[in-house]
Amino acid sequence: MTHPAVIDELMTLVDPGKVLTDLASLEAYGKDWTKHYPPAPSAIVLPKTLEQVQAIVAWANRHQVALVPSGGRTGLSAGAVAANGEVVVAFDYMNQILSFNEFDRTVVCQPGVVTRQLQQFAEDHGLYYPVDFASSGSSQIGGNIATNAGGIKVIRYGMTRNWVAGLKVVTGKGDLLELNKDLIKNATGYDLRQLFIGAEGTLGFVVEATMRLDRAPRNLTAMVLGTPDFDSIMPVLHAFQGRLDLTAFEFFSDKALAKVMGRGDVPPPFDTDCPFYALLEFEASNEDVANDALATFEHCVEQGWVLDGVMSQSETQLKNLWKLREYISETISHWTPYKNDISVTVSKVPAFLRDIDAIVAQHYPDYEVVWYGHIGDGNLHLNILKPDDMSKDAFFASCARVNKWVFEIVERYNGSISAEHGVGMTKRDYLGYSRSADEIACMKAIKAVFDPNGIMNPGKIFAPE
Amino acid sequence: MTHPAVIDELMTLVDPGKVLTDLASLEAYGKDWTKHYPPAPSAIVLPKTLEQVQAIVAWANRHQVALVPSGGRTGLSAGAVAANGEVVVAFDYMNQILSFNEFDRTVVCQPGVVTRQLQQFAEDHGLYYPVDFASSGSSQIGGNIATNAGGIKVIRYGMTRNWVAGLKVVTGKGDLLELNKDLIKNATGYDLRQLFIGAEGTLGFVVEATMRLDRAPRNLTAMVLGTPDFDSIMPVLHAFQGRLDLTAFEFFSDKALAKVMGRGDVPPPFDTDCPFYALLEFEASNEDVANDALATFEHCVEQGWVLDGVMSQSETQLKNLWKLREYISETISHWTPYKNDISVTVSKVPAFLRDIDAIVAQHYPDYEVVWYGHIGDGNLHLNILKPDDMSKDAFFASCARVNKWVFEIVERYNGSISAEHGVGMTKRDYLGYSRSADEIACMKAIKAVFDPNGIMNPGKIFAPE
Repeated sequence: MTHPAVIDELMTLVDPGKVLTDLASLEAYGKDWTKHYPPAPSAIVLPKTLEQVQAIVAWANRHQVALVPSGGRTGLSAGAVAANGEVVVAFDYMNQILSFNEFDRTVVCQPGVVTRQLQQFAEDHGLYYPVDFASSGSSQIGGNIATNAGGIKVIRYGMTRNWVAGLKVVTGKGDLLELNKDLIKNATGYDLRQLFIGAEGTLGFVVEATMRLDRAPRNLTAMVLGTPDFDSIMPVLHAFQGRLDLTAFEFFSDKALAKVMGRGDVPPPFDTDCPFYALLEFEASNEDVANDALATFEHCVEQGWVLDGVMSQSETQLKNLWKLREYISETISHWTPYKNDISVTVSKVPAFLRDIDAIVAQHYPDYEVVWYGHIGDGNLHLNILKPDDMSKDAFFASCARVNKWVFEIVERYNGSISAEHGVGMTKRDYLGYSRSADEIACMKAIKAVFDPNGIMNPGKIFAPE
Repeated sequence: MTHPAVIDELMTLVDPGKVLTDLASLEAYGKDWTKHYPPAPSAIVLPKTLEQVQAIVAWANRHQVALVPSGGRTGLSAGAVAANGEVVVAFDYMNQILSFNEFDRTVVCQPGVVTRQLQQFAEDHGLYYPVDFASSGSSQIGGNIATNAGGIKVIRYGMTRNWVAGLKVVTGKGDLLELNKDLIKNATGYDLRQLFIGAEGTLGFVVEATMRLDRAPRNLTAMVLGTPDFDSIMPVLHAFQGRLDLTAFEFFSDKALAKVMGRGDVPPPFDTDCPFYALLEFEASNEDVANDALATFEHCVEQGWVLDGVMSQSETQLKNLWKLREYISETISHWTPYKNDISVTVSKVPAFLRDIDAIVAQHYPDYEVVWYGHIGDGNLHLNILKPDDMSKDAFFASCARVNKWVFEIVERYNGSISAEHGVGMTKRDYLGYSRSADEIACMKAIKAVFDPNGIMNPGKIFAPE
């Protein structure tokens, strides 16, 4: 733990009352949504300006104190967990939208701006911030950038990376870097902005970000389609992608739907029971598009790929169809799921899912497995539900054994062990299944360039030496 | 120069006849389109496989030989020039499209695939490779990636960076890295792929690239609009961007148009003479879109922003309107132009252009200045034409003096001294106008990670120490 006198010095660097050491704060700020690791930070510091962040980093270098950045703490890989006496740097008081340029469609955000706050700001100005996911009501822009957050609209809009026009970061050395200056075209050497996106705070902290906005979508319309088997989902995706500009293409299994139906507050999409469902969305900006969608639907039914389907006719129906997909994560959290967030190239998905299903069924025939995910991006969420009569510890321990087999399949398919949740602490021991030893050596050397004393979120991405 | 015995050893690493040392080859492969620097390579080597590239890099490390990568040699910043006895590694024999995945819409390319070859391949498969620019008939994919090539469709499709799904690179250490494995979502630490894109071969060589394709555009339609002054172009952009999804928004001055008209092989857009012209393009996928475009045009005329305009009604008219913009570069090359390729955020363009125009006019009232560029991206091409009665050397020397003043303005506007042409040798001494000393130090340290012996394209991006 950090020495009390050193914490006293920290207090002189920020506003009065902005260093917290009470037990409730340490508990609250020391963890994220993973909850696998008991939080144990030394203190929480809440800077209000980027100069204060620089002073904190200089202080940490002087005293060799490890820092953990903290945003909305909605991460699922323990990237923002302080389990080893670190000082948590939380951005709650750097939560302002600083400026808006209507012409450039850019918004300058402090790192603590909540995703939904930016989405709402965009909407208020007739524009759109397209990165969206279940935790958008709590997650912060700084955290989104640190994890290169993805979500449900990636098929059309890409990851958070695509929407970062410029970054101000404080590196582990304490330098303030202004990266890319919000330019669309800038060919002046290595694009360091890209390195900080997805670096999980291990190189430095984002202290300001210029985010791009898009035009507002026009008449978003969703379809939910039931398929006779998983394999049929792929030609359905192909058929729709060939005729429409999709804004989303998600899938979920009958088990996932059954859990959401069990809540009693969401209407079923239609009466036919199907083993798998696809949810797709597009802009029905004119009648031609809606007609194209219906013709493609009919084609899919004729081919036997789709058993039943429904298309939203109103904003309310659109929202209700999305609830079928969006409520899954929250609903199954009741069963303490063991989550894997894996990806392969889209064309490999059916064989990949079959292989993983077989491994899980073989070793754990009694576990309930819930599949859903962003199938249009090749991103599958594999959720193994805890049997009611099993202890949490025993369950997680047995799932950790499955992990190895799952990741061996991921490696064989040239996939990713973490599609969009990051590495943090939960995946760091498995990094070698997705990145080569040479790559990992390069990454560590790059970390040393920006963070020579190893004070920035140590033990995340890379296992401690 | 490299010792003959060392060149003999190089010959054993590649196919027979694939090391060239004759004067014509040294001249041809030692330079790009800049032609400022006399070419002086020691030899040209033409590998056929990535294993041969690895062997060449190992050889270069053993003998401390500098390597210069060479693609289509269409660069405008001397990034592929070998002026100091380097060995040129040319990818002419690694020019195959290796595979195509219809479902993932990806194409695996060797680095020597020509841009137009990929565009044509996409078209043959009902798809689209959207990065396009004047030199697409010669430039190669490896070079496009090394410079993060932009061009005329960036407003809609982004830079080359957006279309690189995965990369295989041989680093300066000789390691073969497989970066990102073509995944859409992959949150497993630093995205090293992004570092190699735009690195101008200073970290390693691209030996294979998986490029994404897009759906084919639907009924591309162009408008050329004449404006009464430069400032009117911006509200025109804003008005059209608010109603249409533009695929291009270019501009050029009356002087640029006059040069193209002087060729005699392109029809004028309309009779009204205007000081500035905008060329915009969109998909007229249905009648509503064309009507929106016409209504926006009428609004712009009513506001006094547009004096005259024309909309293409056929593929031939579309092509003819594009010639007005696309032929500029080739046409003015007759006047040995001094080129600057600069950018700012879009909203700053009018003030920025005014300031630069004033500086150039003040110091060089006799020089003819031709402006054109990708205004929708904030990217301006400033071309200063050589007076007929002035020697090339005297002209370039005097332009180099203007450079300083131009770049001071770029710095004041937080812009880029190289929007899309890269740094190479021509801009390396000015890098500090766009990147801070701390950033440059980080970039050099990153280069040392991948290229500890400094053999990869030395003297490019960074001035020799």
